[in-house]
Amino acid sequence: MARVVVDVMLKPEILDPQGKAVQGALPRLGFSGVSDVRQGKRFELEIDGDATDETLARVHEIAETLLSNPVIEDYAVHVEGGSASAKHRA
Amino acid sequence: MARVVVDVMLKPEILDPQGKAVQGALPRLGFSGVSDVRQGKRFELEIDGDATDETLARVHEIAETLLSNPVIEDYAVHVEGGSASAKHRA
Repeated sequence: MARVVVDVMLKPEILDPQGKAVQGALPRLGFSGVSDVRQGKRFELEIDGDATDETLARVHEIAETLLSNPVIEDYAVHVEGGSASAKHRA
Repeated sequence: MARVVVDVMLKPEILDPQGKAVQGALPRLGFSGVSDVRQGKRFELEIDGDATDETLARVHEIAETLLSNPVIEDYAVHVEGGSASAKHRA
Protein backbone atom coordinates (compact mmCIF):
# COMPACT_ATOMS: atom_id res chain seq x y z
CA MET A 1 0.00 0.00 0.00
CA ALA A 2 1.20 3.51 -0.77
CA ARG A 3 -0.43 6.83 -0.02
CA VAL A 4 -0.26 9.31 -2.87
CA VAL A 5 -1.32 12.89 -2.15
CA VAL A 6 -2.75 15.23 -4.78
CA ASP A 7 -2.83 18.90 -3.83
CA VAL A 8 -5.08 21.06 -6.00
CA MET A 9 -4.75 24.85 -5.78
CA LEU A 10 -6.27 27.68 -7.81
CA LYS A 11 -3.79 29.15 -10.29
CA PRO A 12 -2.00 32.22 -8.79
CA GLU A 13 -3.74 34.56 -11.23
CA ILE A 14 -7.22 33.37 -10.20
CA LEU A 15 -8.99 35.27 -7.37
CA ASP A 16 -9.44 33.05 -4.29
CA PRO A 17 -12.48 34.32 -2.35
CA GLN A 18 -12.23 31.59 0.31
CA GLY A 19 -8.61 32.45 0.97
CA LYS A 20 -9.50 36.16 1.13
CA ALA A 21 -12.28 35.39 3.65
CA VAL A 22 -9.84 33.52 5.91
CA GLN A 23 -7.26 36.29 5.52
CA GLY A 24 -9.88 38.89 6.46
CA ALA A 25 -10.83 37.00 9.63
CA LEU A 26 -7.28 36.73 10.97
CA PRO A 27 -6.90 40.30 12.32
CA ARG A 28 -10.32 40.03 14.04
CA LEU A 29 -8.96 36.98 15.88
CA GLY A 30 -5.82 38.86 16.83
CA PHE A 31 -3.48 37.27 14.30
CA SER A 32 -1.16 39.52 12.32
CA GLY A 33 1.82 38.94 10.03
CA VAL A 34 0.00 36.79 7.45
CA SER A 35 0.16 38.58 4.09
CA ASP A 36 -1.85 36.10 2.00
CA VAL A 37 -3.96 32.96 2.42
CA ARG A 38 -4.94 30.57 -0.36
CA GLN A 39 -7.27 27.62 0.08
CA GLY A 40 -7.29 24.45 -2.04
CA LYS A 41 -8.10 20.76 -1.90
CA ARG A 42 -6.03 17.83 -0.70
CA PHE A 43 -6.73 14.26 -1.83
CA GLU A 44 -5.17 11.21 -0.20
CA LEU A 45 -5.29 8.14 -2.47
CA GLU A 46 -4.51 4.74 -0.97
CA ILE A 47 -2.90 2.80 -3.81
CA ASP A 48 -2.71 -1.03 -3.95
CA GLY A 49 0.95 -2.04 -4.20
CA ASP A 50 3.92 0.33 -4.52
CA ALA A 51 3.94 3.82 -5.98
CA THR A 52 5.69 2.86 -9.21
CA ASP A 53 6.22 5.34 -12.08
CA GLU A 54 3.31 3.70 -13.88
CA THR A 55 1.06 4.17 -10.83
CA LEU A 56 2.11 7.80 -10.49
CA ALA A 57 1.38 8.38 -14.19
CA ARG A 58 -2.12 7.05 -13.56
CA VAL A 59 -2.53 9.35 -10.54
CA HIS A 60 -1.53 12.29 -12.74
CA GLU A 61 -4.29 11.24 -15.17
CA ILE A 62 -6.80 11.00 -12.29
CA ALA A 63 -5.69 14.42 -11.01
CA GLU A 64 -6.05 16.00 -14.44
CA THR A 65 -9.41 14.45 -15.38
CA LEU A 66 -11.25 14.09 -12.09
CA LEU A 67 -9.65 15.98 -9.22
CA SER A 68 -8.81 19.32 -10.80
CA ASN A 69 -10.05 21.77 -13.42
CA PRO A 70 -6.97 22.43 -15.58
CA VAL A 71 -8.40 25.77 -16.76
CA ILE A 72 -8.25 27.40 -13.30
CA GLU A 73 -6.32 24.95 -11.12
CA ASP A 74 -2.80 23.55 -10.80
CA TYR A 75 -2.09 20.27 -9.05
CA ALA A 76 0.90 18.62 -7.43
CA VAL A 77 1.37 14.89 -6.82
CA HIS A 78 3.64 13.43 -4.15
CA VAL A 79 4.04 10.14 -2.37
CA GLU A 80 3.49 10.62 1.36
CA GLY A 81 6.72 9.86 3.07
CA GLY A 82 8.55 10.11 -0.28
CA SER A 83 10.71 13.13 -1.15
CA ALA A 84 9.94 13.34 -4.87
CA SER A 85 7.06 15.63 -5.73
CA ALA A 86 5.89 16.55 -9.22
CA LYS A 87 4.14 19.88 -9.65
CA HIS A 88 2.02 20.34 -12.77
CA ARG A 89 0.93 23.70 -14.22
CA ALA A 90 -1.61 23.06 -16.98
CA MET B 1 8.62 35.57 3.49
CA ALA B 2 7.82 31.96 4.32
CA ARG B 3 5.02 29.77 3.09
CA VAL B 4 3.43 27.64 5.78
CA VAL B 5 0.99 24.95 4.68
CA VAL B 6 -1.88 23.69 6.83
CA ASP B 7 -3.48 20.45 5.70
CA VAL B 8 -6.87 19.70 7.24
CA MET B 9 -8.33 16.21 6.89
CA LEU B 10 -11.37 14.52 8.42
CA LYS B 11 -10.43 12.18 11.27
CA PRO B 12 -10.04 8.58 10.02
CA GLU B 13 -13.12 7.45 11.94
CA ILE B 14 -15.34 10.08 10.27
CA LEU B 15 -17.17 9.08 7.05
CA ASP B 16 -15.89 11.10 4.06
CA PRO B 17 -18.71 11.30 1.47
CA GLN B 18 -16.67 13.45 -0.93
CA GLY B 19 -13.84 10.96 -0.88
CA LYS B 20 -16.28 8.10 -1.41
CA ALA B 21 -17.81 9.94 -4.40
CA VAL B 22 -14.39 10.33 -6.01
CA GLN B 23 -13.54 6.70 -5.26
CA GLY B 24 -16.82 5.58 -6.83
CA ALA B 25 -16.11 7.53 -10.02
CA LEU B 26 -12.65 6.05 -10.61
CA PRO B 27 -13.75 2.64 -12.03
CA ARG B 28 -16.20 4.39 -14.40
CA LEU B 29 -13.22 6.35 -15.76
CA GLY B 30 -11.22 3.15 -16.14
CA PHE B 31 -8.95 3.61 -13.12
CA SER B 32 -8.43 0.64 -10.80
CA GLY B 33 -6.07 -0.13 -7.92
CA VAL B 34 -7.15 2.75 -5.68
CA SER B 35 -8.54 1.29 -2.45
CA ASP B 36 -9.52 4.53 -0.68
CA VAL B 37 -9.78 8.25 -1.37
CA ARG B 38 -10.08 10.97 1.27
CA GLN B 39 -10.60 14.66 0.52
CA GLY B 40 -9.57 17.56 2.75
CA LYS B 41 -8.49 21.17 2.64
CA ARG B 42 -5.08 22.73 2.02
CA PHE B 43 -4.25 26.25 3.17
CA GLU B 44 -1.14 28.13 2.07
CA LEU B 45 -0.26 31.01 4.42
CA GLU B 46 2.29 33.56 3.29
CA ILE B 47 4.03 34.66 6.51
CA ASP B 48 5.96 37.95 6.86
CA GLY B 49 9.51 37.14 7.92
CA ASP B 50 10.89 33.67 8.71
CA ALA B 51 8.96 30.65 9.96
CA THR B 52 10.26 30.83 13.52
CA ASP B 53 8.98 28.55 16.31
CA GLU B 54 6.88 31.45 17.56
CA THR B 55 5.33 31.94 14.10
CA LEU B 56 4.60 28.23 13.78
CA ALA B 57 2.96 28.26 17.22
CA ARG B 58 0.69 31.04 15.96
CA VAL B 59 -0.12 29.05 12.81
CA HIS B 60 -1.08 26.10 15.00
CA GLU B 61 -3.46 28.45 16.86
CA ILE B 62 -4.91 29.69 13.55
CA ALA B 63 -5.30 26.08 12.35
CA GLU B 64 -7.05 25.04 15.55
CA THR B 65 -9.40 28.04 15.87
CA LEU B 66 -10.14 29.07 12.29
CA LEU B 67 -9.07 26.50 9.72
CA SER B 68 -10.24 23.22 11.28
CA ASN B 69 -12.99 21.79 13.46
CA PRO B 70 -11.09 19.87 16.15
CA VAL B 71 -14.13 17.66 16.84
CA ILE B 72 -14.07 15.99 13.40
CA GLU B 73 -10.80 17.11 11.78
CA ASP B 74 -7.06 16.68 12.27
CA TYR B 75 -4.55 19.16 10.87
CA ALA B 76 -0.87 19.13 9.97
CA VAL B 77 1.40 22.16 9.67
CA HIS B 78 4.58 22.24 7.61
CA VAL B 79 6.83 24.88 6.12
CA GLU B 80 6.89 24.51 2.34
CA GLY B 81 10.39 23.57 1.37
CA GLY B 82 11.12 22.68 5.03
CA SER B 83 11.44 19.05 6.19
CA ALA B 84 9.87 19.42 9.62
CA SER B 85 6.15 18.81 9.75
CA ALA B 86 3.98 18.70 12.84
CA LYS B 87 0.83 16.58 12.73
CA HIS B 88 -1.85 17.35 15.32
CA ARG B 89 -4.64 14.96 16.34
CA ALA B 90 -7.09 16.83 18.58
